[in-house]
Amino acid sequence: MHHHKVSNAIIRRLPRYRRYLGYLQTKGIKKISSSELSELIGYTASQIRQDLNTFGEFGQQGYGYEVDNLYKEINRILGLDREYKTVVIGVGNLGQAITNYTYYYKIGFNIMGLFDANPDIIGKKFNDVEVMDVANLEEYVRNENIDIGVICVNRESAQSVADSLVAGGVKGIWNFAPIDLEVPDKVALESVHLSDSLHALSFMIKSKAEEYGE
Amino acid sequence: MHHHKVSNAIIRRLPRYRRYLGYLQTKGIKKISSSELSELIGYTASQIRQDLNTFGEFGQQGYGYEVDNLYKEINRILGLDREYKTVVIGVGNLGQAITNYTYYYKIGFNIMGLFDANPDIIGKKFNDVEVMDVANLEEYVRNENIDIGVICVNRESAQSVADSLVAGGVKGIWNFAPIDLEVPDKVALESVHLSDSLHALSFMIKSKAEEYGE
Repeated sequence: MHHHKVSNAIIRRLPRYRRYLGYLQTKGIKKISSSELSELIGYTASQIRQDLNTFGEFGQQGYGYEVDNLYKEINRILGLDREYKTVVIGVGNLGQAITNYTYYYKIGFNIMGLFDANPDIIGKKFNDVEVMDVANLEEYVRNENIDIGVICVNRESAQSVADSLVAGGVKGIWNFAPIDLEVPDKVALESVHLSDSLHALSFMIKSKAEEYGE
Repeated sequence: MHHHKVSNAIIRRLPRYRRYLGYLQTKGIKKISSSELSELIGYTASQIRQDLNTFGEFGQQGYGYEVDNLYKEINRILGLDREYKTVVIGVGNLGQAITNYTYYYKIGFNIMGLFDANPDIIGKKFNDVEVMDVANLEEYVRNENIDIGVICVNRESAQSVADSLVAGGVKGIWNFAPIDLEVPDKVALESVHLSDSLHALSFMIKSKAEEYGE
């Protein structure tokens, strides 16, 4: 199956399906119809049926979806049925937070190495992983077959870090620096723009104030 | 003007327009056509014209947009022409990263107070702001007319923190805990689900591997 023609919108919806199905699992719910799922997630039932049909026949007419099975299938579709060798570059608060997060929730992204340019931090350990010199990043990525680099450095250093990751052969970059990186098409790039999220919040606050007359 | 009927999709696009216009400003670019903007941002030119027309007449036929003016207008539309009194709850690595981020980029979200439940952290200062006991959160929010609460606590404590913020009268919540919070409709809620972003990356890595035959 080739998924690369799947739209950006569905890439955004799939993790959300997964999250809600995981929630249903924790509640012990075994079956759910597309209209129940619609009420929970907020997409229309026909949108949900269409999305899930893109990847195969998961539901049964008049029966709905088996939660455990659908969760497992979405994991597989998302590529979460494997582990990823991951490095984090920039071990400030954000880098440490991301490292703790992936460590704590045991989500298949194994932090193999941490990197920083600051000599005061190089050599320290976080969750038993030692901080290495960012000068050695490319070589490490190549030798250890690293899959993913997480960029937690500042705006100014981010592109050069991305270049080292690409030269070393990573398959994907998770970028937290507030900049649009340039990487070759074959490297997957996901940027978390915290300011976009904060500005959307600002807009919603303004809209609610107008709606509720405050 | 009432913006509360504006779709969720456009709320996601507006901060992106702002980000690219800011980028054009740093490059000294004064004018841009919708088709040039389209090439930069990746939305169609007609989508861009339609989005910007929702809020007024910014462009001129055959002339394009004035970058500075459009940037300023989008700031106004997003509610970024004012300042927000903000508190951060949970002063672990993530809370500190968010505090540094808003402090460093001077983006109109003024961190007035930090809160934590850990007695070892209460009383410490970060960027000159003292950490207070989360038990006093509701009272502080009410007395200081706090606009926004940023939730950086764990999944288990997040809803109770949100309840205190709502009881104290915040207008918006920026949530980083991996949980869907319940808040009254009049309170704006923006959740950053880091796992969704990471899972989208995983999906893209898988798709690229299939596309490039690796």
